[in-house]
Amino acid sequence: MHSLKQGPVAVIGGGVIGGGWAARLLLNGIDVRIHDPHPEAGRRVREMLANAERAWESLTSAPLPAKGSLSFCGSIAEAVEGSVFIEECTPENLELKQRILAEVENDAASDALIGSSTSGLLPSDLQSEMKHPERLLVTHPFNPVYLLPLVELCGGRLTSPEVLDQAAALFESLGMRPLKLKKEIDGFLADRLLEAIWRESLWLVHDDVASVEDLDDAFRFGPGLRFALMGSFLIYRIAGGEEGMRHFMAQFGPALKWPWTKLMDVPELTDTFLDKIASQSDEQAGNLSIRELEQIRDDGLVAILQGLKGVDWGAGSVFRKQEKQLFENFHQNAVHKDLDETQPLVLHRGWIRPSWTDYNGHMTESRYLQVFGDATDALLGYLGLDQEYLDSGFSVFTVESHIRHLDEGAPGSNFVVKTQLLGGDEKRLHIWHELLDQESGSLFATGEHMLLHVDTLAAKSCTMQSRLLSKSQQLRSLHQSLKRPEAAGRSIALPSGN
Amino acid sequence: MHSLKQGPVAVIGGGVIGGGWAARLLLNGIDVRIHDPHPEAGRRVREMLANAERAWESLTSAPLPAKGSLSFCGSIAEAVEGSVFIEECTPENLELKQRILAEVENDAASDALIGSSTSGLLPSDLQSEMKHPERLLVTHPFNPVYLLPLVELCGGRLTSPEVLDQAAALFESLGMRPLKLKKEIDGFLADRLLEAIWRESLWLVHDDVASVEDLDDAFRFGPGLRFALMGSFLIYRIAGGEEGMRHFMAQFGPALKWPWTKLMDVPELTDTFLDKIASQSDEQAGNLSIRELEQIRDDGLVAILQGLKGVDWGAGSVFRKQEKQLFENFHQNAVHKDLDETQPLVLHRGWIRPSWTDYNGHMTESRYLQVFGDATDALLGYLGLDQEYLDSGFSVFTVESHIRHLDEGAPGSNFVVKTQLLGGDEKRLHIWHELLDQESGSLFATGEHMLLHVDTLAAKSCTMQSRLLSKSQQLRSLHQSLKRPEAAGRSIALPSGN
Repeated sequence: MHSLKQGPVAVIGGGVIGGGWAARLLLNGIDVRIHDPHPEAGRRVREMLANAERAWESLTSAPLPAKGSLSFCGSIAEAVEGSVFIEECTPENLELKQRILAEVENDAASDALIGSSTSGLLPSDLQSEMKHPERLLVTHPFNPVYLLPLVELCGGRLTSPEVLDQAAALFESLGMRPLKLKKEIDGFLADRLLEAIWRESLWLVHDDVASVEDLDDAFRFGPGLRFALMGSFLIYRIAGGEEGMRHFMAQFGPALKWPWTKLMDVPELTDTFLDKIASQSDEQAGNLSIRELEQIRDDGLVAILQGLKGVDWGAGSVFRKQEKQLFENFHQNAVHKDLDETQPLVLHRGWIRPSWTDYNGHMTESRYLQVFGDATDALLGYLGLDQEYLDSGFSVFTVESHIRHLDEGAPGSNFVVKTQLLGGDEKRLHIWHELLDQESGSLFATGEHMLLHVDTLAAKSCTMQSRLLSKSQQLRSLHQSLKRPEAAGRSIALPSGN
Repeated sequence: MHSLKQGPVAVIGGGVIGGGWAARLLLNGIDVRIHDPHPEAGRRVREMLANAERAWESLTSAPLPAKGSLSFCGSIAEAVEGSVFIEECTPENLELKQRILAEVENDAASDALIGSSTSGLLPSDLQSEMKHPERLLVTHPFNPVYLLPLVELCGGRLTSPEVLDQAAALFESLGMRPLKLKKEIDGFLADRLLEAIWRESLWLVHDDVASVEDLDDAFRFGPGLRFALMGSFLIYRIAGGEEGMRHFMAQFGPALKWPWTKLMDVPELTDTFLDKIASQSDEQAGNLSIRELEQIRDDGLVAILQGLKGVDWGAGSVFRKQEKQLFENFHQNAVHKDLDETQPLVLHRGWIRPSWTDYNGHMTESRYLQVFGDATDALLGYLGLDQEYLDSGFSVFTVESHIRHLDEGAPGSNFVVKTQLLGGDEKRLHIWHELLDQESGSLFATGEHMLLHVDTLAAKSCTMQSRLLSKSQQLRSLHQSLKRPEAAGRSIALPSGN
């Protein structure tokens, strides 16, 4: 089976979708070869990648793999040569896409998979002129591609079923949620639903029933919040209450006969109507640029994904699984093998999120312990505490922490945590973290922690297993020659003892 | 102007919407008089209230007002008598609603406002037979009413404009986001959009293009995540990229002419089709009961609202404002005035959220500091540190914390924090928190903290302002006679000094 790790992926078209694919692939450690004749394409893709990195930095402290390399190619031929997967992201025009797919096939390996990001054109039409049509499928993602997990997979009449399975596995390895369509249909699933909303919205603006802002508010303050969790069917099942779905249909079935939506007709896109939409949209966006709007959207999506991860539901479950995989990859690859163990270790880095600040505009105190906790986890991972170790019934708990707050970290600043092993025995680790500004080196806080190794089933402390014990003892003996921080072992007291 | 605080609100109908209104009102400290002839209505409303309390407990640590009292009334007359506001939540049937509104008017005060929760019937039709039609408006909420902020306000031909303004102010005081419609239209705004999705979804299931689960997944893993943040117009503006809304319309305008949605016709709701929907819906829900599904939905919405609060956007901004108001009300009302100050104070309670647990299934260490931080805030609020104090340029920062983890709190268990003032001077507070299981009294953790009073502008420590200082000193002298916890002032060290 194909693996994306084997070779580069070609992305044809560097717009919002092509750039989004490139960002997701690169952040997953995959090399990307992109072709787009637009003179601004390079800048736009790099800006989108910067947005994606910013979002992922704040989404997770899980260790991302080394970023893939990004090449801009002057031709389709150059981009697809040697690529294991080719993603087509050109404008929604059947003839154009067919022409591009023919060019792709001229230089692509005959077994390279080809995905089209089309929002709604039929794969049977796209593949009708291809030499190897069996490896073409629709792979329809959603903007921003680097954050939203959904990708609709749809094969045409000539697509091989194995290709659909292969593609599903590839996208899962990118932290996505492939949805295989049972039948080929214009607009697939999500865009048919979105198009229905869109037609209705255009009528309501056209008829001056509401402004574009009213319509957006009617979604985002109400039913839109639910759609991050559930689709219409589960939502209505719940709305039906204890009597279930049939009861709901009986209650709201009649409304389907009432004039609650417009006909399928769309208002004519006259200049006057387009002006109305454009000017209302300008008013709604206020002074916010597209880049700023993208960042607001991404910050919101990050918060939603993190929230849903906490409840392990929907997109949050997809992200949770991906994060777990990232930690496992990290431990397996021992990325830190070239660390200088005679010095305090830098195993955890990050940046202070705006959402971490309290009413004083400073980093909330519990976030300091969160950062130190993450640094402790990084140390434990480094020492060999992996999923297998946990599954074998042992773990390490923090039994005591002493935090000293020394300086204020401003939102947005990068930090590093330096970790020193102060002491330990066969059951305990006594550790010292320093949280520093990465640029200035100023010390924000220190954390002193006592960790205890436990038998999780018996719920009591016990000697570490040999692997963890020997690595800990090795580090301890190296760190014994380091200067002991003056504040280590201090207790909390008023200066005058009042 | 009317104020909901002045008197009870009558809710006519105790289904999903009526029960949801009752829950939101009660949690906002407002008395509710509910009428519903259904024999199970009482149990259902109480279950919904329990769900709402559970969600709010986890949504915020802000101090909620004392809950309003809930009465079940045997008749409409009994429910509406003396009520300042009456919310009608009966089935979607114009004649029924008109009959009920006539009954309401028989016994309601002539200036009581009357809102109808109808999903789409016209207020002009609802009010056509009323004696005082000027005080009738549509107040259309979204399920769950106790969490979603949106309420669509729509007046009829005879509704007074002042009534719309009054209602908007009332709903804002409940933490909601009223959206006043410019024109009266069937289905208002949100339900027209939802109905469009729903019609399309029914066709896709009817034609076996997709299952109900496929359609729900096509939303919740992709575009649905965005709808918690933004509506179609802003989303498409962003998708249009740098070229803006007109470019987007030019690019995707043609798709409006393609067969990407079905006609407005709906599939006939035959028994066979209803069976298909009901059985696919059963399969999708698996073993989850409606109550369990509601809790999953609520936990997700809580996480989303908290996430959006962090980025201060959309529904998160509404919630942030409400939470700020709750803290202000709390400080103004000095709810704790009858505390015994000669004992450690219980100023913070809560329960261990499932989302607080780590990979060991135990409460994540940073959550302990979060709980202690909340308890510290509660103490500072109790001592007089309110918004006015903060706005005057002074605050109190934690400079040192020492946490001891003694026992594991299981997810779901209730906790209390007992707080003792160990010492202090005119700039410092030395405090001791104990986090205990509320039922068993077992001690999960202790927190010892040094707090420093600061001039936030000068960014240096300074003497407390008189109000805070005198209250602190008073509490300190009372707590001086308490036994000092043995572990106070301890430092962290290995037992053998290794």
